Amino acid sequence: MDPYMIQTNGNGNLSPVLDVRVNISGRSSGLGKMKGRKARWSVRPSDMSDKTFNPIRAIVDSMKVKPNPNKTMISLSIGDPTVFGNLPTDPEVTQAMKDALDSGKYNGYAPSIGYLSSREEVASYFHCPKAPLEAKDVILTSGCSQAIELCLAVLANPGQNILIPRPGFSLYKTLAESMGIEVKLYNLLPEKSWEIDLKQLESLIDEKTACIIVNNPSNPCGSVFSKSHLQKILAVAARQCVPILADEIYGDMVFSDCKYEPLATLSTNVPILSCGGLAKRWLVPGWRLGWILIHDRRDIFGNEIRDGLVKLSQRILGPCTIVQGALKSILRRTPQEFYHNTLSFLKSNADLCYGALAAIPGLQPVRPSGAMYLMVGIEMEHFPEFENDVEFTERLVAEQSVHCLPATCFEYPNFFRVVITVPEVMMLEACSRIQEFCEQHYQCTEGSQEECDK
Amino acid sequence: MDPYMIQTNGNGNLSPVLDVRVNISGRSSGLGKMKGRKARWSVRPSDMSDKTFNPIRAIVDSMKVKPNPNKTMISLSIGDPTVFGNLPTDPEVTQAMKDALDSGKYNGYAPSIGYLSSREEVASYFHCPKAPLEAKDVILTSGCSQAIELCLAVLANPGQNILIPRPGFSLYKTLAESMGIEVKLYNLLPEKSWEIDLKQLESLIDEKTACIIVNNPSNPCGSVFSKSHLQKILAVAARQCVPILADEIYGDMVFSDCKYEPLATLSTNVPILSCGGLAKRWLVPGWRLGWILIHDRRDIFGNEIRDGLVKLSQRILGPCTIVQGALKSILRRTPQEFYHNTLSFLKSNADLCYGALAAIPGLQPVRPSGAMYLMVGIEMEHFPEFENDVEFTERLVAEQSVHCLPATCFEYPNFFRVVITVPEVMMLEACSRIQEFCEQHYQCTEGSQEECDK
Repeated sequence: MDPYMIQTNGNGNLSPVLDVRVNISGRSSGLGKMKGRKARWSVRPSDMSDKTFNPIRAIVDSMKVKPNPNKTMISLSIGDPTVFGNLPTDPEVTQAMKDALDSGKYNGYAPSIGYLSSREEVASYFHCPKAPLEAKDVILTSGCSQAIELCLAVLANPGQNILIPRPGFSLYKTLAESMGIEVKLYNLLPEKSWEIDLKQLESLIDEKTACIIVNNPSNPCGSVFSKSHLQKILAVAARQCVPILADEIYGDMVFSDCKYEPLATLSTNVPILSCGGLAKRWLVPGWRLGWILIHDRRDIFGNEIRDGLVKLSQRILGPCTIVQGALKSILRRTPQEFYHNTLSFLKSNADLCYGALAAIPGLQPVRPSGAMYLMVGIEMEHFPEFENDVEFTERLVAEQSVHCLPATCFEYPNFFRVVITVPEVMMLEACSRIQEFCEQHYQCTEGSQEECDK
Repeated sequence: MDPYMIQTNGNGNLSPVLDVRVNISGRSSGLGKMKGRKARWSVRPSDMSDKTFNPIRAIVDSMKVKPNPNKTMISLSIGDPTVFGNLPTDPEVTQAMKDALDSGKYNGYAPSIGYLSSREEVASYFHCPKAPLEAKDVILTSGCSQAIELCLAVLANPGQNILIPRPGFSLYKTLAESMGIEVKLYNLLPEKSWEIDLKQLESLIDEKTACIIVNNPSNPCGSVFSKSHLQKILAVAARQCVPILADEIYGDMVFSDCKYEPLATLSTNVPILSCGGLAKRWLVPGWRLGWILIHDRRDIFGNEIRDGLVKLSQRILGPCTIVQGALKSILRRTPQEFYHNTLSFLKSNADLCYGALAAIPGLQPVRPSGAMYLMVGIEMEHFPEFENDVEFTERLVAEQSVHCLPATCFEYPNFFRVVITVPEVMMLEACSRIQEFCEQHYQCTEGSQEECDK
């Protein structure tokens, strides 16, 4: 009997014929099985999904330790300012969303790069004489992650390479390798407040280098580059003719004693794709509203790169239209006090944490100037019990119920990262537990008696 | 003078050394230029962005015609039910969003596949005895577009192929080709209410076929497959051991006189990834809340495909957390009347439109059973002035200010697609203008006098 409902001709003995065809040219032979045998199910995940590797997940998930049941858990591991409830977004931001909902105007599809009116708002918010922006220079994305993904996807082909910071945010490598793009790590120097080793950076550039990712302010370092250092970075890019992907998601999140310079404001000729979003400064990372700012005053990207970004944006369309509709009010109405209060809180927590950890023998914290993080060096020779930063942070969880991310997650062993968005009491408690932990495990090394008399 | 701010050693004549190295191994030589010459800027978009092609944009953008200034424009081209304001979402849906905002609980990062609680809600909403679902079977995405993208990305490698319907939604081809995946078109048969030519479908399957995309209810056809036809499709997939990607974004959007059967409820052994979202049924396409439902009762996908989807979701993280937070109330509180009213409106518009166009000599509309569309065949031999459906619809805009999509956008020449979400008066006005247009351009063919006496 014909297994098909639809017969385009009356051929009743169709299926046996088909079965023969199937067994000859079908999957079974393709799967290397005997001719004439039925195909078998074999569904394998793609190479791309195999290559999509998130080191934080891999390392943290493999940390199979239970916290100390006698101490409440303090997690300093997640870069999410909202988890403790002490850093709510501004009421104006929430109201802007409700207004967008009530208007009923933002339920339909927006253009895949975002509403023109929303892109105009972002452009005028970030526009400045040295780095002019119009709506056509703005692409709205589903979070800063998609902004970075689109930039890498348009700039690099499989087999090319990109330069990323070490220590650095793990997503760069995760995205690049999933696309078959090689990553080369350039060094940040803790002794220079995490400035880039420019000589080593330049030595990594070859004919296959598609872009340099510059993350400023930095996750995980909490560092902020000076104007002159940024100019030196631009000089390397200009000399080598390599465009820059500037991850500026922590833009403007710098402490009172230093200034944030958007990279594009310092460049006259280097083409720059600057990625940002609402996540950190407006404290709503879950809303997934990011953007790409295209700075190309010498027309080096040209229309091709712009068109490429537009075409790539059409694959999944843009961010939630309600957030897009709220963007105008969010950018215009959020009071300066809100930004100021967030930063002064972060600064005071950073000072607290740095001061407390700097006093602990065996630890070498690096004072941050912005963002939400602080990196701490571990003098491993004084903690011979532990093989590395992963084991150190594991045991810190097991004994003190304090969870910090081992910097191996950021390709930087023997450091750990502290998130400084936690309430002050928690910050202090965490630091004193870290102190207790270190005092219990610190060991003098040969001829460092003096140090041990501290 | 050393161009670097950071000197790891005091070597003052570092830069000339570097310059030499750069000119030997740097981009300049890579770009095939003379040694010693400075590199030049050359930034090209990636092959992937070149390969990302949206036929609708390409065809529509190339339609350089102005509407008739004496007639107001009626656009029947965009599959967005919100553009005319006659189909607002339900107040419960908007309220659910406000409640999520007010709770302050949904501003932070969710897991990249979505909150567990939100995935539980989707699972229980779509769970049924024949196709059981738990939270672990649900992945939330940034719209149904990303759901489809993730499914293709996990199932297919470059060089493999997927089977997609003709006529069919253009995104399948856009996504697949951007990933280097070949598309093979299987035919839908208008004379059989757009059922699949199963024989031809099966003949396309080879050892490189990664999946079959089944879109039911259909965009652009507005067709709904019967239970028995869906069973026949599953029989082909089972015989050939090819998994199915079911695009069921229009699920449950069927008219009173027929029934929607989720594909997975009819299968016992074929692994199915069902893609859906809030866009169409809840009339909020801009909110970008989609999902993948993993149906794998025979454990053919296994953990590898599930893990692959999770890993791929970590590239840009999930959908907006406010919509995720609202999902529970949206799925539980939206009144049945809302769904009912939408469908009865669409049904009555479909009947109006079908009736009106069926009476027009030279047109052959196909009656829809669901979704938001209606396909109309053009008897081109009766419109010799026009070369094809693109020219036909172009002139329809120019003369009558009515914009329909030429079905060439869906790989199906000599048809056009009508969107039936417009207000009734507009629908009627559009149909009478289409009638006037056809009457003005209709030409008898040899020996069809009778037909012309209509």
